[in-house]
Amino acid sequence: MPAETMEDLVSLCKRRGFIFQGSDIYGGLQGTYDYGPLGVELKNNLKAAWWRANVYERDDMEGLDASILTHRSVLRYSGHEATFADPLVDNRESKKRYRLDHLLKAQTPEVLRLLVLELQRDELIYDATSRRLPFGIAQIGKAFRNEITPRNFIFRVRELEQMEIEFFVLPGTDEAWHAQWLETRLAWWQEQGVPRERMQVYDVPQADLAHYSKRTYDLLYDFPTLGFEELEGIANRTDFDLGSHSKGQDALGVGAQVMDNPDSTARLAVQDPESKRWVVPYVIEPSAGVDRGVLAVLSEAYTEETLETGEERVVLKLRPQLAPIKVAVIPLAKNKTEITDYARALKRELQRLGLGRILYEDTGNIGKAYRRHDEVGTPYCVTVDYDTLGQSRDGSLDLKDTVTVRERDSMAQERVAVAELSAYLSEKLRGGLER
Amino acid sequence: MPAETMEDLVSLCKRRGFIFQGSDIYGGLQGTYDYGPLGVELKNNLKAAWWRANVYERDDMEGLDASILTHRSVLRYSGHEATFADPLVDNRESKKRYRLDHLLKAQTPEVLRLLVLELQRDELIYDATSRRLPFGIAQIGKAFRNEITPRNFIFRVRELEQMEIEFFVLPGTDEAWHAQWLETRLAWWQEQGVPRERMQVYDVPQADLAHYSKRTYDLLYDFPTLGFEELEGIANRTDFDLGSHSKGQDALGVGAQVMDNPDSTARLAVQDPESKRWVVPYVIEPSAGVDRGVLAVLSEAYTEETLETGEERVVLKLRPQLAPIKVAVIPLAKNKTEITDYARALKRELQRLGLGRILYEDTGNIGKAYRRHDEVGTPYCVTVDYDTLGQSRDGSLDLKDTVTVRERDSMAQERVAVAELSAYLSEKLRGGLER
Repeated sequence: MPAETMEDLVSLCKRRGFIFQGSDIYGGLQGTYDYGPLGVELKNNLKAAWWRANVYERDDMEGLDASILTHRSVLRYSGHEATFADPLVDNRESKKRYRLDHLLKAQTPEVLRLLVLELQRDELIYDATSRRLPFGIAQIGKAFRNEITPRNFIFRVRELEQMEIEFFVLPGTDEAWHAQWLETRLAWWQEQGVPRERMQVYDVPQADLAHYSKRTYDLLYDFPTLGFEELEGIANRTDFDLGSHSKGQDALGVGAQVMDNPDSTARLAVQDPESKRWVVPYVIEPSAGVDRGVLAVLSEAYTEETLETGEERVVLKLRPQLAPIKVAVIPLAKNKTEITDYARALKRELQRLGLGRILYEDTGNIGKAYRRHDEVGTPYCVTVDYDTLGQSRDGSLDLKDTVTVRERDSMAQERVAVAELSAYLSEKLRGGLER
Repeated sequence: MPAETMEDLVSLCKRRGFIFQGSDIYGGLQGTYDYGPLGVELKNNLKAAWWRANVYERDDMEGLDASILTHRSVLRYSGHEATFADPLVDNRESKKRYRLDHLLKAQTPEVLRLLVLELQRDELIYDATSRRLPFGIAQIGKAFRNEITPRNFIFRVRELEQMEIEFFVLPGTDEAWHAQWLETRLAWWQEQGVPRERMQVYDVPQADLAHYSKRTYDLLYDFPTLGFEELEGIANRTDFDLGSHSKGQDALGVGAQVMDNPDSTARLAVQDPESKRWVVPYVIEPSAGVDRGVLAVLSEAYTEETLETGEERVVLKLRPQLAPIKVAVIPLAKNKTEITDYARALKRELQRLGLGRILYEDTGNIGKAYRRHDEVGTPYCVTVDYDTLGQSRDGSLDLKDTVTVRERDSMAQERVAVAELSAYLSEKLRGGLER
């Protein structure tokens, strides 16, 4: 039961410190957003899940972080220069105008491609056997867009983050790999809590494709208020990118329409070990928006429920790997030092498990704390009380060194021995974290 | 035994895919660097260690991610506008010139401060008891500098990342907190493998301080070739930042020299619950460079050793939490499917522990693999061989389902049962990871 309107999400995000309008105290700066304490955890968790799936769990991918500032030639041969504006800088004191030799620009796929070929070149020197097609690179980075009409919360913004894969394949295998990446990416979104039936695959018509694209799939998600809009694009970019930036283009038989390139110092191609012919790899590019991803998983997780008591609650049913706070440790009485000390020690112990953020939570009463953590998607609340200290009202020590563990979605409560708590929570959370 | 020259590090970084010159195939773009597969893991690990220590392990800090694009007023009242150049954009087609309403700028502390006060305001509405001084915010983000003379590898660059804390304290407690943050940060660098005796604390002389700074400590590290240079700055910025951006300055008794601010919509102050007087918090700001941090930990870890055999090796003695690859799983024979399948399954199993990157490594022979992983700082290599399969030469099954675990620094090898391997490696690595 996803969110029905964008307003539901905006309201929750502001109320609970997920996402705010940028420069808010000066009336806001359109198209910019600041991620608050919970938003930054959610966003980092989404990026980490992507990185795990695409770098750690595959043997054919490597991660990268290329600089945003790039050489003018990168833009020229990517075909961007003609349409880009010149950035100029005026120095007020000297009254002089400077033209920058480099352009500050959006993180483009080209940067990635150039770098990977660098890598490849170095390995043809050091260990020629270590890298074979197909292989890919993964990068997460900031990008800027001069959106004329930024709108719809974090859906259309001027400053955004992208998660991009460039997957290099032999020509001829590109269509099969393109189809496979489509399935891989749909499955990944599903693991993040975005079900297949709430997504559509838009097969971009030939007439609408850029000249270098052979085929592009847009993954659309049914955003609240907006309806189906793009969440990720998966393009078959042919040999345009590598062909554009390679030296010795003539001898490589580049199929795409590329500019003559006398400046490049690298042959961006691989050699067939048998025929000795050079081949320019095709690029399959799955490129997803981090901010749109955050919006989609928030929207899917957002649930309004009426409890048996008639009370209403908002609960964010985020997958455990995405939850900003994994466990909240709550002392039942915050003015009782024995209880708060016990809870703090427990928080420190759980924090060391490497599950993500564990919060020591001593604001408000227990009921309010549960509601607050339902709203921000905390999967488990752990409560330390008098029974934990061995100070039960009936004098019994049966519950000494046990705590109450409450699960978010079912609201079921269970008494768990502190000695077993680390294993209990690791088991419950790790599966999700490591998927 | 740290690196003796910057060239040692540059050479290793290029050879092993840590860090490259940006836009390399076009001759490079000065002052920009691309982080390769191992560099991005090292950098991410350093940032994660900082985040854990400053957000997860403290109850008085929150993480944030504020946008880089900011409102002009933010710059104006921070005192930046007068000295900043105007960014202008020419459109080649229309021949028109545009002046941007917003400035693309370095991530400044001001952005953080404005946001946190937002938070505070909202909590004075929702839960007035939940936030008390002192508290702080943590952010990691990109920044750009128009360095005239970028040089010395990643020490002085045009594009960099910063890890910044803004810690808000009551005036009068600022000196004690400033001193405490100095100790906290020195201890943290020590945990990352930068020993106290290789750092110096430079107490910036009064005459060299910015007008708003009461006192600033620079943490200097003994960089190879460069000598002692700044790694982190810890400033006591008084009430300048909040005073500058607050509305109703007159009633707040701001001590710092600030501009009149008729534009702000927020009172950036806290109210004393008893006297009802408004107080503008002081800011203690520990601000560290990610790239310089990477350089420092690389430099400390870099070790050249002569083995008993007379052979030389380079080993990166990185702390486990920083190592780009935590474990390499190596099949002894790469053309033997039973062995490679076993190794791949083991890699997948270890990857699920959430320790970081686990690599399936089948390039070159076992000796080369060890050397390669010494050079990139992999703490453990796990080798799958015929004994693991129960195919020992002597027909014995004693070593079935056991593997060889080799430790990087001591080069000691141990035979470990596969059933116990997860626990064994978690125990060895987790302590370091969670510190």
